Amino acid sequence: MHVLVLHGPNLNLLGQREPDVYGRVTLDEVDAALGRRAEALGCTVECRQSNHEGVLVDAIQAARGGCDGLVVNAGAYTHTSVALRDALLAIDRPFVEVHLSNLAKREPFRQRSLLADVAVGTIQGFGAHGYVLALDALHALLNSPRT
Amino acid sequence: MHVLVLHGPNLNLLGQREPDVYGRVTLDEVDAALGRRAEALGCTVECRQSNHEGVLVDAIQAARGGCDGLVVNAGAYTHTSVALRDALLAIDRPFVEVHLSNLAKREPFRQRSLLADVAVGTIQGFGAHGYVLALDALHALLNSPRT
Amino acid sequence: MHVLVLHGPNLNLLGQREPDVYGRVTLDEVDAALGRRAEALGCTVECRQSNHEGVLVDAIQAARGGCDGLVVNAGAYTHTSVALRDALLAIDRPFVEVHLSNLAKREPFRQRSLLADVAVGTIQGFGAHGYVLALDALHALLNSPRT
Amino acid sequence: MHVLVLHGPNLNLLGQREPDVYGRVTLDEVDAALGRRAEALGCTVECRQSNHEGVLVDAIQAARGGCDGLVVNAGAYTHTSVALRDALLAIDRPFVEVHLSNLAKREPFRQRSLLADVAVGTIQGFGAHGYVLALDALHALLNSPRT
Amino acid sequence: MHVLVLHGPNLNLLGQREPDVYGRVTLDEVDAALGRRAEALGCTVECRQSNHEGVLVDAIQAARGGCDGLVVNAGAYTHTSVALRDALLAIDRPFVEVHLSNLAKREPFRQRSLLADVAVGTIQGFGAHGYVLALDALHALLNSPRT
Amino acid sequence: MHVLVLHGPNLNLLGQREPDVYGRVTLDEVDAALGRRAEALGCTVECRQSNHEGVLVDAIQAARGGCDGLVVNAGAYTHTSVALRDALLAIDRPFVEVHLSNLAKREPFRQRSLLADVAVGTIQGFGAHGYVLALDALHALLNSPRT
Amino acid sequence: MHVLVLHGPNLNLLGQREPDVYGRVTLDEVDAALGRRAEALGCTVECRQSNHEGVLVDAIQAARGGCDGLVVNAGAYTHTSVALRDALLAIDRPFVEVHLSNLAKREPFRQRSLLADVAVGTIQGFGAHGYVLALDALHALLNSPRT
Amino acid sequence: MHVLVLHGPNLNLLGQREPDVYGRVTLDEVDAALGRRAEALGCTVECRQSNHEGVLVDAIQAARGGCDGLVVNAGAYTHTSVALRDALLAIDRPFVEVHLSNLAKREPFRQRSLLADVAVGTIQGFGAHGYVLALDALHALLNSPRT
Amino acid sequence: MHVLVLHGPNLNLLGQREPDVYGRVTLDEVDAALGRRAEALGCTVECRQSNHEGVLVDAIQAARGGCDGLVVNAGAYTHTSVALRDALLAIDRPFVEVHLSNLAKREPFRQRSLLADVAVGTIQGFGAHGYVLALDALHALLNSPRT
Amino acid sequence: MHVLVLHGPNLNLLGQREPDVYGRVTLDEVDAALGRRAEALGCTVECRQSNHEGVLVDAIQAARGGCDGLVVNAGAYTHTSVALRDALLAIDRPFVEVHLSNLAKREPFRQRSLLADVAVGTIQGFGAHGYVLALDALHALLNSPRT
Amino acid sequence: MHVLVLHGPNLNLLGQREPDVYGRVTLDEVDAALGRRAEALGCTVECRQSNHEGVLVDAIQAARGGCDGLVVNAGAYTHTSVALRDALLAIDRPFVEVHLSNLAKREPFRQRSLLADVAVGTIQGFGAHGYVLALDALHALLNSPRT
Amino acid sequence: MHVLVLHGPNLNLLGQREPDVYGRVTLDEVDAALGRRAEALGCTVECRQSNHEGVLVDAIQAARGGCDGLVVNAGAYTHTSVALRDALLAIDRPFVEVHLSNLAKREPFRQRSLLADVAVGTIQGFGAHGYVLALDALHALLNSPRT
Repeated sequence: MHVLVLHGPNLNLLGQREPDVYGRVTLDEVDAALGRRAEALGCTVECRQSNHEGVLVDAIQAARGGCDGLVVNAGAYTHTSVALRDALLAIDRPFVEVHLSNLAKREPFRQRSLLADVAVGTIQGFGAHGYVLALDALHALLNSPRT
Repeated sequence: MHVLVLHGPNLNLLGQREPDVYGRVTLDEVDAALGRRAEALGCTVECRQSNHEGVLVDAIQAARGGCDGLVVNAGAYTHTSVALRDALLAIDRPFVEVHLSNLAKREPFRQRSLLADVAVGTIQGFGAHGYVLALDALHALLNSPRT
Repeated sequence: MHVLVLHGPNLNLLGQREPDVYGRVTLDEVDAALGRRAEALGCTVECRQSNHEGVLVDAIQAARGGCDGLVVNAGAYTHTSVALRDALLAIDRPFVEVHLSNLAKREPFRQRSLLADVAVGTIQGFGAHGYVLALDALHALLNSPRT
Repeated sequence: MHVLVLHGPNLNLLGQREPDVYGRVTLDEVDAALGRRAEALGCTVECRQSNHEGVLVDAIQAARGGCDGLVVNAGAYTHTSVALRDALLAIDRPFVEVHLSNLAKREPFRQRSLLADVAVGTIQGFGAHGYVLALDALHALLNSPRT
Repeated sequence: MHVLVLHGPNLNLLGQREPDVYGRVTLDEVDAALGRRAEALGCTVECRQSNHEGVLVDAIQAARGGCDGLVVNAGAYTHTSVALRDALLAIDRPFVEVHLSNLAKREPFRQRSLLADVAVGTIQGFGAHGYVLALDALHALLNSPRT
Repeated sequence: MHVLVLHGPNLNLLGQREPDVYGRVTLDEVDAALGRRAEALGCTVECRQSNHEGVLVDAIQAARGGCDGLVVNAGAYTHTSVALRDALLAIDRPFVEVHLSNLAKREPFRQRSLLADVAVGTIQGFGAHGYVLALDALHALLNSPRT
Repeated sequence: MHVLVLHGPNLNLLGQREPDVYGRVTLDEVDAALGRRAEALGCTVECRQSNHEGVLVDAIQAARGGCDGLVVNAGAYTHTSVALRDALLAIDRPFVEVHLSNLAKREPFRQRSLLADVAVGTIQGFGAHGYVLALDALHALLNSPRT
Repeated sequence: MHVLVLHGPNLNLLGQREPDVYGRVTLDEVDAALGRRAEALGCTVECRQSNHEGVLVDAIQAARGGCDGLVVNAGAYTHTSVALRDALLAIDRPFVEVHLSNLAKREPFRQRSLLADVAVGTIQGFGAHGYVLALDALHALLNSPRT
Repeated sequence: MHVLVLHGPNLNLLGQREPDVYGRVTLDEVDAALGRRAEALGCTVECRQSNHEGVLVDAIQAARGGCDGLVVNAGAYTHTSVALRDALLAIDRPFVEVHLSNLAKREPFRQRSLLADVAVGTIQGFGAHGYVLALDALHALLNSPRT
Repeated sequence: MHVLVLHGPNLNLLGQREPDVYGRVTLDEVDAALGRRAEALGCTVECRQSNHEGVLVDAIQAARGGCDGLVVNAGAYTHTSVALRDALLAIDRPFVEVHLSNLAKREPFRQRSLLADVAVGTIQGFGAHGYVLALDALHALLNSPRT
Repeated sequence: MHVLVLHGPNLNLLGQREPDVYGRVTLDEVDAALGRRAEALGCTVECRQSNHEGVLVDAIQAARGGCDGLVVNAGAYTHTSVALRDALLAIDRPFVEVHLSNLAKREPFRQRSLLADVAVGTIQGFGAHGYVLALDALHALLNSPRT
Repeated sequence: MHVLVLHGPNLNLLGQREPDVYGRVTLDEVDAALGRRAEALGCTVECRQSNHEGVLVDAIQAARGGCDGLVVNAGAYTHTSVALRDALLAIDRPFVEVHLSNLAKREPFRQRSLLADVAVGTIQGFGAHGYVLALDALHALLNSPRT
């Protein structure tokens, strides 16, 4: 079982950017924690970040043959990108939507996700720990009888 | 560390009610899984279910002095009860919102949660397993430095 | 064939409450008329009224094994209760929605029913006589080939 | 007591048109059933169908002196015709609105009726049997003291 | 100078229909008054009424070569007919919109006119006298330098 | 019979201001035409213009005992002044609303009149001639039996 | 003259719950102040609090024969309960709506009251003192000639 | 393969009516071009125009047994006629929606088509040539394996 | 302690204007009652009325140095004047909003107050007596520890 | 080149009023800075402030013959005054809209300007310095070839 | 005559991606069909696909001097990209909008096209064949007298 | 003091693209004028243009350590890019929003800026000169005491 983890725009600044909102953990630390958790669960993860919508679409398409599921924090593109939604639908793999902050407390334009209704489920508000919970959730799903 | 788990209306029928939407696990099985997980985490849980909005408000108020956090699946009251929101605000304890199904795939009136913006965060779409993830998230939060 | 008839909040005051809107027939008289009609149709009815949303949810759940269909006038809860909707969906029995007054002539917040699209159909505007029509409709449905 | 029954556009195709939505009974069978019921109730019915809005307006105006009430299934014109509403108001006779399908389960543009708030009441969702219920309701109304 | 006066659906019942709203003058009396006024102004009028949208469209098209302007009370079609709007635009003749009642006091769906923004102007709320004012207004317009 | 004619803000510039929209007739010419028409009808008119909302409210209140009706072109205040509406209601005299241009062709914020539903009726789109039509309409109304 | 004072959900926590919003006075102190004021005014008060919508409906119905008016702070149910509105309409007694906080400064969902337009009037923003003002207002109303 | 081509209201004026919007080709020329194209494709077409909504509904119903598909330019009725939609659904034949002008550049009320979501597809903005493209598209569809 | 009482447009007609809505008490009587109440409370009041928005803004600004709080019934300007809101914010004095009628029962455009969320609180629906309640409320506030 | 600078309601309190929002510079200082800048640019400025909408309309009309352009900070009237918009349109002179604060950060009702789409452009968020920028912009515009 | 054909994001997966929605033809096959059709029409086509919005903008700009028209299927960017709209406007070349599926049957966010009102016209719902129709339409347009 | 100037998509075509809307000055000329102005002000500017949203995000992130403020004309991305907003927030530097045209006169979708409420202020409608005004404004801000 192999999982692709996608980080959207500005997440490369994690730990430095608006720490009151997004916390002080860096993206490298997030990826390391995911690696450890994957090892514990007996699976592998690959983590990608980009500020470019097209690069993220390309990455999803490229993962088509080689991953069993995705953990996706599309950041700002969550609210504006139909292209990411279409790419995720196109490759037909289950994915879990993650957000560091609790979007229900944010600006109105962050209340709408173009990905949520095609995701398996959503985990938001738990900071960097949310990624680990998402990996757990995806692992459980992929190992459940109905998958 | 003690956690109150609240199940809202119709969740007593879990496993029998619309299994395509809500799955086949029963509420007793959910509560048992939560108990095992709590034990593993070194905390305790108490689980309550009611079809009555007022009973749920009473239960939250009663938990005021004796719990460190809550896991709340308010079911249908998620979308209609300002009273539950006010009770949760009144006792000033962190709580995690859980939903069995992915609400983003459901009817429009299920898209609005009156609890989400006062919760720590939300976990939805992972069936009964979501409760365990929520307990993990709450446990991590209560043990993190900022709590 | 057994039918559960549910009367929602304030319907216990029928005949005394706003008679210009709701008419002068009492709830006992409605229930008696339903009993006579049921006898004529060769079926049985049981009538319940409550001002408590939770009690109505409990009543629907309890009817699960023992009724073939329902006639439901949820009164004010028609417009606010997702819990009743969920309970009616959970027991998977056909029900007919009844309203004494013609809701299309009432306040805007009474124009939305949370039950209508999961009911078999709706009968409204005919006063207490609407209950008898609803029982007729339910009886015809349960005896038609497609039921 | 004489009742005019109006069938709106495309109802002449009843039984052949989208049978999953509208059933397999033909309009002739509906009219025959209404005739039998009228006889049983001691009244007379006249049934008219047209695909032309203007013809329906003319028919309502013509019925002005000679009918005591109407049963109206305006079909598609229910949602678009202010002219039918005005005609029904102009002749000042009580009418019952009928729909074969449960409009609450249909497209959004079918949720608005331009007739409902000037009708006595509405019966919808019971297929062809709804016409008979409507005739019963109208008969009861016309024979009740307040009429 | 020749003027076509168009009366929409249900206006043939003028004087009998909802007299509190529309007054007690009949359509024949309106047409006679218009005839007298036209004579005084030195022009001619032709008056047509129909309950059929298509007949009104045909009448407008037919007037294309032979009238200098129109007075139009489209009745209920004011609010629903794009076809009348298109026909009036197609023949490229100035027309004055008339309404017997003050639409600003009526139902919300009567607040939108599909004709108003392509009319020269609107006169509403003055009962049958409004037609005479409209003829005056059209006459003045057709005799003003800018026409 | 005495009539107060009120002109709202910027109407003192009539003839000079945006002549493509409002025409080239001056306010003095409008008032003179109204004077001639009033004489022909056997009544008197008094014309007032102000750019100040409060002055217009004062003028309406002052007219309370001494006029039988009003012709009101509130200009820009048509769309923003609840105070003018209240003043017109307070003195309980019939008034006719006039607009030089056809508001249905103007900006969206000019589509809403705060006066229209408390006026007798509205005349718009006929330029300066509309005032004369309004005086005719008011005169006819005040001389009709129902006044 | 006897007055029923109703306190809605979570008001039993008054003084402890979100003191920045609701103040530090307890519900017992509010009730005591109301008792003193009632005595000064020469009337009697009875105070009830419940977290259960159905219990509040029952209490209103029960007060039907025995109270002259009500002071109602329905708390969270102000915004969600059609059942309370219907019960208050059903017993046909004047009531004054009270809120501790100024709802105009609160969340959007607290801006809509389902009770306000059937109340005599509303008093909000004055903390616990608002109850005393409400009792004064109700007393004055019940003693005024028009009552 | 036989195709019915329907032209809605005012299309009989094509070439004369607002040529800047609709072009200068007449309806006869459109029909002739369709005839030539049909011959080239080896199919037959029949063209009908009416200003009457009911006549168009009748024509669709009559085509039920005898045509394989339709090309429909419902003109103004595109935006207002549920009856045409229902008729087209009732006969269960594929149809292509055509518009001469690009509706996306027109008034807001022309942005909504009541036919589009039940058509195979839409072609708009290409003037009279759009009919030929529509016939091509329908022909290709009817000859493709999935038809 | 000195209090400025502001009466907005048309309140000078109190007692004469629409007495069914606003009652029969005159503004002089209101001011006299406020004077008596102020004396009893040991404070002073000054009452101003104007139909001019600018005059009211000037009056608020002038009160800046010399009053401790305000009672404001801005009448029609409640719903339209951002300038009054800004003036009240600019002088930084607590004020109580009063309305004679219960705005929740009035026209939609009276449901929005531009002052309510910057007022201490609102009292509405109690006629002229509401001013006295407002003075009581303001007096209590200014004498409470937190002021 | 002569420029009229208009300051709307409450701007006379600049420097004293809500300094966190509007800064501590007084209106006299703003006007002095504008005078210096005008001198540097080789033009003249005249500055007017009023709390009265009508006075501002009068001032704009009076400037008709004698100014080449305007700098307008209409304050609260920006959001409510169609009369100011009409006056500015009537005199047909270019004007620049200025706001001290960044309206995009303010209350929703301050997001709509009735002047913006008829201004040359808008400058907002730079405090008192914005006036100087506006004068620069207007000067450049009046001296550019296209003016 | 040279035509640029643009394919937006995820169209490179055509034939593999959601074949029930988009069909089984590949993008290479589409491009080949367009090449054959262009040859038959005597023109040339160049086909580009990209998942990157910026790349598509660059491509449009680059085509400025060298193409006579475009066929554009912007895929997901149809609904979100103002930049593509601006680029297409900037180069001032006619373009035809194509969509494989009938957008009127898709999710609400696919109902709005940011390109449609600046396109010549739209062809949607005919699968890969729609591209050929679009080329035909563009060819006819570029060869018609009015181009 | 160093300032980054960002130009969004299609601004590279400035001077050639829709000159009636955007003017005839080229981007090189804008950048040259900014360079001269910066020199006069004693600061430095660096100008970047890209059609790629991701490239703009990268550029903002890269400027993090090395610029004191930004002048941003995000062009089409103003209305669609949450990613740019997040990047600008992430680097915590003041920026001024510029638009060449007056957006208040443009299409509705250009009325919403996702950047405006996190900018210092906005300058729009002054063509290329607006950039120079923005640099002035930013310079004044960075040199004012409160920065």
